[in-house]
Amino acid sequence: MYDLDAYLNAHIPITRAMGITLEGYDAGQLTLSAPLEPNVNDKGTAFAGSLATLATLCGWSYTHVSLADAGCSADVMVAKSETRYLKPAGGGLQATCKGPDAATRSRFFEAFAERGKARWTLSVELHSRGELTVCYEGDYVAVRKNERSLKPA
Amino acid sequence: MYDLDAYLNAHIPITRAMGITLEGYDAGQLTLSAPLEPNVNDKGTAFAGSLATLATLCGWSYTHVSLADAGCSADVMVAKSETRYLKPAGGGLQATCKGPDAATRSRFFEAFAERGKARWTLSVELHSRGELTVCYEGDYVAVRKNERSLKPA
Repeated sequence: MYDLDAYLNAHIPITRAMGITLEGYDAGQLTLSAPLEPNVNDKGTAFAGSLATLATLCGWSYTHVSLADAGCSADVMVAKSETRYLKPAGGGLQATCKGPDAATRSRFFEAFAERGKARWTLSVELHSRGELTVCYEGDYVAVRKNERSLKPA
Repeated sequence: MYDLDAYLNAHIPITRAMGITLEGYDAGQLTLSAPLEPNVNDKGTAFAGSLATLATLCGWSYTHVSLADAGCSADVMVAKSETRYLKPAGGGLQATCKGPDAATRSRFFEAFAERGKARWTLSVELHSRGELTVCYEGDYVAVRKNERSLKPA
C-alpha cells in the first residue's frame, strides 16, 4: 500500500500543521481527515481555507495515489476548481473523493501512457459530524516526470 | 487602522503556520502576503491548498476589514468560489482583492444596515515573482453578530 502520509509529511509541510492524514483508499475512493483544532476559525468552526485545502488535496491525492498504484511516476497539478460551502463544520473533517467512472479512468490512463499527460475532473465531498459541509469539483492534470529530474543536480 | 494581523493570529491559527500577513489596505484594495517556505509542495513551488487559502482569506479579509472600518460587527463567511491555477508560484505570494465598484459597495452596506445581512462577489488575483499565478472569484456573506453571542456562556 502506497504511504501517502509519509509523502505529504516529507513534501508538503503545511499538511502536518493541519493534521491531515489518509483515512482510507481503494480504487473506488480516497478519504482524508483532519481535526478541527488546528483548523479552527474566528467562529469556532472550520476555517474556509482549511476546507478548501482539504478538498483540493483530496482530489490531488486520489490522482497521485492512482498513478503511483499503476506504477506511473508523475507530477500532479490542480488546474481549476469550484467550491460550495453548504454549512459550517463544527467538528473533525472528512473529505472523500469517489473517483470517476471506469470509462473515465481508462481514458485517463490511456492518455497518460500515450502522451505522458492526462486530465480528469474529480468530485470531493467534505463531511463534519456526519453532515455534508462542502461540495467541490476540481480538474487535475498529471504529467510524466522528466527522468532528468530524478538525477542528482 | 484595523489590526487584521492580530485578529488572524488570535482567531485563525493556521494563518500563523502559513506566515500570512497584511501587506496593505485601503477602501480600494487589500493585499495579503505569505512566504513560499512554509507553503511549499512536492515540486518546490507553492502548494495549491495554500494558494486557495490565501485567495479565499483575501476576499474574506477585504469584507471583514471593510465592515470593521464602517463600525459594523459581523460574521463573514465564504459561500462559494472558483479558482483557476494559471502557473506554478516559485516564490513569495501576494494576493490582492481589488474590491467591487462603488455601486456594489453601496448596495452591500445598505443591505447590511437594513436586513443585517449582505452578500457580494469579490475577485482576487495572486502573484508570485511578479507573475499572475491564480485568478479567484468568491461570494461572501456578512451577517450582523447576534449580541447574545457576545455574552459569556
